[in-house]
Amino acid sequence: MDWSGRRVLVTGGAGFLGANLCHELARRGARVVALDGFLFGGGANPKNLDGSGVELVRGDIREIDLRPLCEGATAIFNLAAQTSHMGGQADPLADIAVNAVAQVRLIQAAREAAPDAIVVHASTRQFYGRPRKLPVDENEPVAPPDANGVSKFAGEQYWMLEHRVRGRPVVSLRLTNCYGPRLRVRDARQTFLGIWLRCVLEGKPFEVWGGAQLRDMTYVDDVTEAFIRSAEQKACHGRIFNIGGSPPISLHDLAEMVVRLAGPPAHYSTREFPADRAQIDIGSYHADDSAFRAAAGWAPTVSLEEGIARTIEWFRPRLGDYL
Amino acid sequence: MDWSGRRVLVTGGAGFLGANLCHELARRGARVVALDGFLFGGGANPKNLDGSGVELVRGDIREIDLRPLCEGATAIFNLAAQTSHMGGQADPLADIAVNAVAQVRLIQAAREAAPDAIVVHASTRQFYGRPRKLPVDENEPVAPPDANGVSKFAGEQYWMLEHRVRGRPVVSLRLTNCYGPRLRVRDARQTFLGIWLRCVLEGKPFEVWGGAQLRDMTYVDDVTEAFIRSAEQKACHGRIFNIGGSPPISLHDLAEMVVRLAGPPAHYSTREFPADRAQIDIGSYHADDSAFRAAAGWAPTVSLEEGIARTIEWFRPRLGDYL
Repeated sequence: MDWSGRRVLVTGGAGFLGANLCHELARRGARVVALDGFLFGGGANPKNLDGSGVELVRGDIREIDLRPLCEGATAIFNLAAQTSHMGGQADPLADIAVNAVAQVRLIQAAREAAPDAIVVHASTRQFYGRPRKLPVDENEPVAPPDANGVSKFAGEQYWMLEHRVRGRPVVSLRLTNCYGPRLRVRDARQTFLGIWLRCVLEGKPFEVWGGAQLRDMTYVDDVTEAFIRSAEQKACHGRIFNIGGSPPISLHDLAEMVVRLAGPPAHYSTREFPADRAQIDIGSYHADDSAFRAAAGWAPTVSLEEGIARTIEWFRPRLGDYL
Repeated sequence: MDWSGRRVLVTGGAGFLGANLCHELARRGARVVALDGFLFGGGANPKNLDGSGVELVRGDIREIDLRPLCEGATAIFNLAAQTSHMGGQADPLADIAVNAVAQVRLIQAAREAAPDAIVVHASTRQFYGRPRKLPVDENEPVAPPDANGVSKFAGEQYWMLEHRVRGRPVVSLRLTNCYGPRLRVRDARQTFLGIWLRCVLEGKPFEVWGGAQLRDMTYVDDVTEAFIRSAEQKACHGRIFNIGGSPPISLHDLAEMVVRLAGPPAHYSTREFPADRAQIDIGSYHADDSAFRAAAGWAPTVSLEEGIARTIEWFRPRLGDYL
């Protein structure tokens, strides 16, 4: 698909994944509008769009008139969300307002202003809860372990209804842990890896909670490609896909890798999982993303080792912009 | 359990199921407060609480201060909802506001004012969508066929989190079609059977849409008993149950039964399923409720034939109050 001159809306466009996607779409010639509310101590950072040529609209998806933003869009990449699990527990009303109620607003606006736009929705593995078996495919039962999982599932399902009832081409990508340049590294709100990276870049020890849990990690360039292919490939439309990445790795082994790639004085300590997080922890997870690979012709191209190394090097000269 | 003198809150207490439950709890000596907003052309009817001695608070669960209503409650029976499938499609913002956002408000109020109350939540088979196999047990995948299914699943899951994360005794009952005295019969908003009954009582023909679909039907006294036992039986707490009732019957056979029990001039005609409803129709459904029967020692006691006959006789002298 030729993106040149196409109008594209990216919600959450100043966030980690949104901004990386904006850069790539702009590179391909799209006229990109990024909507971002800079809410909740999330991943949004104005620096994320530097040099992209993308138009940034600062606005809260719960309130702003969304129709002008949708107007004429070929595609809507819908990444705006409250993504913090602890944040959702602490303020479930704000969490559902963004992740579900505002999705209904966006759906209604898109009906009026962009009835033919393809929508790629950023969803999450989170609402599978503690998986019954590994790897996890799309038939895994939905058992949200926290308020954020409840709201994110609702938001996704509203979008899928828009496909089933009205025929809009909609794709939902249930993402696992993503990482790379422009990640929020100030704290652990986006992923535990954020705070790990900050610590090693500041020469401080980081903490590994537990350590035996398995995770798969997706490098951001591979995530960006997954979003774009989802829009491009008709075989993806109307479907929900798990997106994985690297082969599963234990948090302990990942910590060792981070320390090795960052070099001295990087180091870490291990502690027990905190009680308030253990309540909503999901144990081990890795995705079976074979359905998406088959439908989209996608495969991750950046190994975990390469991705971590690139991320550390990208942040070294820029860490100050992300604290 | 001795309900005598216990304070109980029933949300949606002026509705069909809520009011029947209020009557029975009051009969057992409970001090019952019924909250109802009389919203959306739902099942609420002030006549429903006549003679019950129950205190009715008129208030919108989206706005009213819920803490005084929860204060001191031994149990909260939570039946307030937007239950119309077409209504949810037409106004999904109002639908989620009541069925999910207001649930979070009630959860927060109950934390403050009734931290130990048992909560029995009225849930629905609706979000299973079109079942993969019959009968449907609680492991059936969640695939909401409409906005109402999305919001009702979210509301249920918030309550189950309150059990998992905070230990509150919560039971969720996924109900199928319920019927009996105090049903909304003005139209088909609560169940197709409502408008059928109105028509036969007015001597007019009713319409059967399709006819081959299977349904199970629960008589309201059996639903009331299911709610009360759910609160009473510790083996039920923290669990989600499907509630069935009569053996499955096709809509065609049910229509024949209604005509026979109502007597002349009752009759009906058959028409194709309307297109706008077919999009969100779930085909055949009947519940596997063996888990609930085992945990609660519950079984339906009123046969379909007996229940339909009782319902018709109950409405004959009262139809005017329900139009």
